[in-house]
Amino acid sequence: MPSAYADLNPSPRLLLGPGPSAVHPRVLRAMSTPLLGYTDPEFWKLMDETQELLRHAFQTANALTLPVSGTGMAGMEAVLSNLLEPGDPLLVCAAGFFGNRLEEVALRHGALVTKLEKPWGDVFNLPEIEAALQKSGAKVVAIVQAETSTGALQPMEGLAEVVHRHGALLVMDCVTSLGGVAVKLDEWGVDAAYSGTQKCLGCPPGLAPVSLSQGARDKIRARTQPLSAWYFDLEMLAKYWGGDRAYHHTVSGTLVYALREGLRLVAEEGLEARWARHRRNAEYLWQEMAELDLVPLVPPAHRLPTLTTVRVPEGVDEARVRTRLRDEYNIEVGAGFGPLKGKVWRVGLMGYSSRRENVTLLLGALREILK
Amino acid sequence: MPSAYADLNPSPRLLLGPGPSAVHPRVLRAMSTPLLGYTDPEFWKLMDETQELLRHAFQTANALTLPVSGTGMAGMEAVLSNLLEPGDPLLVCAAGFFGNRLEEVALRHGALVTKLEKPWGDVFNLPEIEAALQKSGAKVVAIVQAETSTGALQPMEGLAEVVHRHGALLVMDCVTSLGGVAVKLDEWGVDAAYSGTQKCLGCPPGLAPVSLSQGARDKIRARTQPLSAWYFDLEMLAKYWGGDRAYHHTVSGTLVYALREGLRLVAEEGLEARWARHRRNAEYLWQEMAELDLVPLVPPAHRLPTLTTVRVPEGVDEARVRTRLRDEYNIEVGAGFGPLKGKVWRVGLMGYSSRRENVTLLLGALREILK
Repeated sequence: MPSAYADLNPSPRLLLGPGPSAVHPRVLRAMSTPLLGYTDPEFWKLMDETQELLRHAFQTANALTLPVSGTGMAGMEAVLSNLLEPGDPLLVCAAGFFGNRLEEVALRHGALVTKLEKPWGDVFNLPEIEAALQKSGAKVVAIVQAETSTGALQPMEGLAEVVHRHGALLVMDCVTSLGGVAVKLDEWGVDAAYSGTQKCLGCPPGLAPVSLSQGARDKIRARTQPLSAWYFDLEMLAKYWGGDRAYHHTVSGTLVYALREGLRLVAEEGLEARWARHRRNAEYLWQEMAELDLVPLVPPAHRLPTLTTVRVPEGVDEARVRTRLRDEYNIEVGAGFGPLKGKVWRVGLMGYSSRRENVTLLLGALREILK
Repeated sequence: MPSAYADLNPSPRLLLGPGPSAVHPRVLRAMSTPLLGYTDPEFWKLMDETQELLRHAFQTANALTLPVSGTGMAGMEAVLSNLLEPGDPLLVCAAGFFGNRLEEVALRHGALVTKLEKPWGDVFNLPEIEAALQKSGAKVVAIVQAETSTGALQPMEGLAEVVHRHGALLVMDCVTSLGGVAVKLDEWGVDAAYSGTQKCLGCPPGLAPVSLSQGARDKIRARTQPLSAWYFDLEMLAKYWGGDRAYHHTVSGTLVYALREGLRLVAEEGLEARWARHRRNAEYLWQEMAELDLVPLVPPAHRLPTLTTVRVPEGVDEARVRTRLRDEYNIEVGAGFGPLKGKVWRVGLMGYSSRRENVTLLLGALREILK
């Protein structure tokens, strides 16, 4: 028998990094609720409600809208592995870590990937995507709306029109945007989107909300062979969630409780009000950071309100500041990585973490450390 | 905005079905604990401890022992997709639903499956497995230790020896056994095992503990192509969990809190004592059921203590009894399915649900309903 392990007693961190963000107290409470069985009609009702609330958050009427039983990366793999057969041409727009991840995962499933690359922190405009699309003949275009590694917000208006004009489908990563900045699947014409629960929805990680248009489902139904990823088979999951409840796997009741509660909070606050709150607290951060000579990496025009990459001033020890924030103030902010390693901090103001008092505290701590 | 959704207020079900089982109150409390970030050294320590406690539960020294971020089915797919390349010969021993599932998932990954089939409820003996192994030339043999669909317990002693003698690896499904009946990976020579958290560990669903021997890892390292399942890439997960902490996905802090607490309870109780408790409460159920003319499907020699399939007496409406148990007594038991549909109830006594008072209550309710 292993020797005694201590009671769970983590330090009270204020999570202002790239995620997970702070879990809302109502969500924490929901998770201490005893379980229902997954064939209990009461639980089916909670599943139905979770799907309805998810459609609201995604701003879509897509029937196939459900949480995959895994983290955000499971959402990415579920979408790509369902939509792509070996040999399918895919265009990936990559200007950061998660753009590159799209390529990495798609290659595993045998896609012929064309990568449109820009420097980390940039976003893409319609003409350059259309040119790459024409050249590649891609049948699927994948893009990250909110790039967690850089803090850039990709404009989505008009993109689906271009993609559809070329007979392709549009896949959007909205892990760091859903519930924090505008996500409008139907208005934008997005065919497949995936997200996570641990960012702007104020829940713990563990589920990956996904939503697929009829066009995306038609492509899946036209597959010549079943996808290899049994666990991520979205048409089977649609039957489990919204159809005849055919047993697929045992969904985590606890995480469904959490997601439903997080989405109830989204609906109560109202999407527009929630997006405005995220923007207001981010703008307060940006404005006050200027007083400390701290400059965001990304220009205002496409700067993400939910995650800000802050340039590390010359002569400042990047890691030491993060460590002091953590050890002296119980504040977590993120490090940069890839080409931004050592060059930026990543400050997340997402979900329940996006509160004015948290910004005030972070600024106060930075003032003391950087003085 | 969706109309108002009610506060979470599920009926207080006593979960005596095939899973999930009741979550231990200490585990429920652990899940309402605020999160740490996944790069926080405090969280790394909790991850390390969870792995150590998992090794104890699996009775193994395997370095690659970790929870996959998905449910038990994710564990099955992770193990099969890592160990099998397209064209690899696999022998599946199937005498129930989850045996068949092994085939279904392995086929997705291109394995050449030979299925050794027996009627639902049976178990396999060494000579018949060896004969099938010789004939099939399989390099991997997969078997279910505790078949949740039938309540049969597969004896594991001596099997690995046979499998290894033929140069193959042994995969074991222990979803409904880990923490409830003996699981001894190293003593038995099992090469790869997977489980779930929502059965005998007293946690909610959402993580899939897996453990791989060096032999299994050698086979993975000898792959000629990377596996398609990026999310389930066990060598990448090993680096995330036990190596350089290279970011792979954002593990669910909440579910790690839960699993660690569930495993602490396992260690505190002691494995032998825990197995004895599960057996004692099952034997009490079996003995008292006889008074009600309720007969288990599986003979005592290979009857599973954690899940009992009970024959529905002639003239009794199977579904009506389950509905009355649920609606009048808040007790959940499971239905049979496949060839056992309508013929059995499935009574789980797993983890925190395995308590004498629960058996007494179930027997009392059945007495009233069946009288």
